[in-house]
Amino acid sequence: MALILAINAGSSSLKFQILDMPDERLVTKGSVERIGLPDSIFSISVKGEKKQEIFSIPDHEEAVRELLKKLTSLRIIQSLSEIEGVGHRVLHGGESFDDSVLITDEVIKKIEGLSELAPLHIPANLVGIKAFREVLPEVPEVAVFDTVFHQTMESETYLYSLPYEYYKDYGIRKYGFHGMSHQYVTLRAAEMLGRPIEELKLISCHLGNGSSITAVKEGKSIDTSMGFTPLAGLTMGTRSGDIDPALIPYIMEKTGMNASEVINVLNKKSGLLGISGFSSDLRDIEKEARRGNKRAELAIEVFVERIHKYIGTYAAKMSGLDAVIFTAGIGEHSSMIRGRVLEGLEFMGIYWDSERNKVNGREQFINAPHSPVKVLVIPTNEEVMIARDTVRLSVHHQKI
Amino acid sequence: MALILAINAGSSSLKFQILDMPDERLVTKGSVERIGLPDSIFSISVKGEKKQEIFSIPDHEEAVRELLKKLTSLRIIQSLSEIEGVGHRVLHGGESFDDSVLITDEVIKKIEGLSELAPLHIPANLVGIKAFREVLPEVPEVAVFDTVFHQTMESETYLYSLPYEYYKDYGIRKYGFHGMSHQYVTLRAAEMLGRPIEELKLISCHLGNGSSITAVKEGKSIDTSMGFTPLAGLTMGTRSGDIDPALIPYIMEKTGMNASEVINVLNKKSGLLGISGFSSDLRDIEKEARRGNKRAELAIEVFVERIHKYIGTYAAKMSGLDAVIFTAGIGEHSSMIRGRVLEGLEFMGIYWDSERNKVNGREQFINAPHSPVKVLVIPTNEEVMIARDTVRLSVHHQKI
Repeated sequence: MALILAINAGSSSLKFQILDMPDERLVTKGSVERIGLPDSIFSISVKGEKKQEIFSIPDHEEAVRELLKKLTSLRIIQSLSEIEGVGHRVLHGGESFDDSVLITDEVIKKIEGLSELAPLHIPANLVGIKAFREVLPEVPEVAVFDTVFHQTMESETYLYSLPYEYYKDYGIRKYGFHGMSHQYVTLRAAEMLGRPIEELKLISCHLGNGSSITAVKEGKSIDTSMGFTPLAGLTMGTRSGDIDPALIPYIMEKTGMNASEVINVLNKKSGLLGISGFSSDLRDIEKEARRGNKRAELAIEVFVERIHKYIGTYAAKMSGLDAVIFTAGIGEHSSMIRGRVLEGLEFMGIYWDSERNKVNGREQFINAPHSPVKVLVIPTNEEVMIARDTVRLSVHHQKI
Repeated sequence: MALILAINAGSSSLKFQILDMPDERLVTKGSVERIGLPDSIFSISVKGEKKQEIFSIPDHEEAVRELLKKLTSLRIIQSLSEIEGVGHRVLHGGESFDDSVLITDEVIKKIEGLSELAPLHIPANLVGIKAFREVLPEVPEVAVFDTVFHQTMESETYLYSLPYEYYKDYGIRKYGFHGMSHQYVTLRAAEMLGRPIEELKLISCHLGNGSSITAVKEGKSIDTSMGFTPLAGLTMGTRSGDIDPALIPYIMEKTGMNASEVINVLNKKSGLLGISGFSSDLRDIEKEARRGNKRAELAIEVFVERIHKYIGTYAAKMSGLDAVIFTAGIGEHSSMIRGRVLEGLEFMGIYWDSERNKVNGREQFINAPHSPVKVLVIPTNEEVMIARDTVRLSVHHQKI
C-alpha cells in the first residue's frame, strides 16, 4: 500500500483521512476535536465503524502522536512506514503559490508570511504542519491550498475597483476558496460527460455551510464568488455574502459596534441564521419552512435567489455553458434547493428532471435527457485532491 | 402652455428644466452652481443658446428667485402663472414612498425622516423644495424619488443576508437608484419594440459617472445593482461597486483610516479613477488606452467585465430577456464599451451589429436584424419622468 494522510488542521481540531493511492480508496478517517481542553474528543473509523474516546490532548503535536499510535494499535495499518506522505490543507496561498508545494523550511516561512490574509486559519494550518515534521520527520509533507485553483483568474476579474495601490501594496484582490472541491468535481464531471475538460464550460456550485460557485472554462477557474476572504459571494450558513459595503459604517453607527465586530456579525450571525433567526443549518430551515415558518421560507428564497443569479453571471462570463454541478452538503443532499435554483433557466438550455433530482449524496445526472446543458450531482472529495498532489510532489521528493 | 419645472437640488447647486406638457417639449434648461459662494454660476439656455452669469447667490431661496426672474426677463415665459407645477428629484424615498407624491407639510416631515438614509442628498433636496414653497407658494410641488421604481422588488431580492432585525430596526435593505432613468428607457424601449411593456423582459444599463443596471419584467423593476446606497453594484467613475465587505477593516488596519474614511475612498477614489490612477472620465481613459496605457486598458476591462456579467445575472433573474438597453453618458456615447459588453452573449440570443453600434447619443436599435434579443440605445430623460408625475399629481391637486 502507498498510504497518504490528508490533514485539515484548525485552531483546536485536526481532521484526517488516510487514502490508499493511486486507487484513492479511503482507509480511515476521523478527527481530534477540542485540542487543548481537558475533554478532547478523538474519533476514528475502523473498518467503517466509528470509535470515539474522550481524554485530554494538550496540543496538536500530541494529537498527531495519538493519531499515529491509534493507527497501529487499532490495526488500521501495520507500521508507520506505510505512510508515504502527509498532505495538508492550507486555506490561503496568496499570490505566492500557484501549485501545491513540498514543505521545506523556506515554504513554511512563505506560508507564515501569508498569515495576515487568513489570520485564523494559517497559524492553525502551520501548527498541523509543524506537528507532523516533529513526529514524522522522515515523511514528506505537502501543502495544498484552497486558493491555488483560482490563480488562473484574469486581472480584470480578480481586481477590485479600488485604488490600484491597494492591490500592489496590500495584496487586496479576489483570491477565491474551495479550490480543491471545485477542481475535483469539475474533473469528475468531465469524466462523467465523457469529454475532455479542455473543451468544457462548467459551473460548479459548492453549497455547504460555506458556499461558493465557480466558473471553470477549459479546466481553469476563471471566476469564483468568494473574494479576498470567504465572506463574499453567496448567502451561507452564517455568512452574509455580498452586501453594499457602505452598510458597514451604517451598522457601526446604529449598533455601536466597531468595524471588526460588524464583520464578525457578517461572518457568524448572518446568512441563513440571520434571516431565519434560528438556525444556520438548511435541514432545520427546510423543516420549519414546511411547517409554515415564514422567516425560514424567506431564508430559503434568498439562498436560492443568489445561486440562481450567479449561474447566469457565470454563464455570461464563459459565453455559455455545458454543465452545472452541485456538490457539498446542501448541493449533494437537498433536491429542493437544486430544483428551485434550476427553475427558470431553460432559456439558457438547462432542463432538469424532477425524478432524477431526487438523488441524495451520490453521483447522478439530474438533467432531462434532451437538455443541452447537463446537470450533475457529484459528492466532493477534497482529500482525494490533497492525496493526489501529495503523491505527485512527494514522489518527486523521494527521487532526489 | 402647461409648463412644469423639473428641479434637481444638490447641496450647492440647483439644476432645472422647463418642460411643456403633455408634449414633453424642452423649453429651457440650466443650473445654478456654487450657491453660497461669492462667484455663483447661473447658466440657462435661451432658444438653444447657453447664457452664463457669475455673481453672488447666497442660498437656494435666492437661486429660485433669480431663476424665476430670469425666466421672464429673458422672455422664456411671459408670466410665472404659466408654471403649473414644480417637480423635485429626491434621492431617497425609503420604504415610505412607493409613488411620487404631492408635497405637503406632512410629506416634508416624512422626507426629513429619511435623511439618515441619504445624509448628503436629502437635506439638499429639501432645501430646494422649501425654497419653491417660499417663492411660489401657490404652485403645487411634487417629489419624485430615485428609489420608487425599485419598490416592486420582492423581499428575497431586496433583503441582505444579515440579521433580520437590521431590516426591521434600521431599514437596511436594497433600495436601488436611477429609478426615473430605468423607467423612462424601458417605457421607451417598449414603444420602440412595438410591444406592451407588460409582456417584456428588459435589462436597462444606465452607464454614466454613476452606473446601475436593472432587470425590468412586465414594466416592474425586479432587481437592480445599486443597494442600500449608490455605492454598490457596478464599477463606476469613482465608486468601487461590490467588494468583499471584509476588506473594510483590512483597509482600515493597513491605512490607519476609520470606516467612514474607507467608505469615502470607495465612493470618491475608486472605480475607473482608482484602477486607472488618473481619471474617472471614461473618455480620458479610452484615449489613454488607445495610446497603450495599460492601467487605462485594465480599468476598461474591469468596467466592461462587471456589466457583461450583470447582464447574465439579470437574464437568469427574469428567466430570459427580450432586450438590453444602453443609456446615460457612457451607454449613449461609447460604442466601444457597448460592443465589448455585448461580446460573447450570443448563447443567450444577443447578436449585435457593429455598424449600427456606431450610433452616438440618439435612439437606435444596435442588434443584428436576426437577433432574438434586441439591443437599443436610448438617451435617458429623467426630467420627463419628473414632469409626467408632476402633471399627474398636481392636476389631481388642483381638482381638490
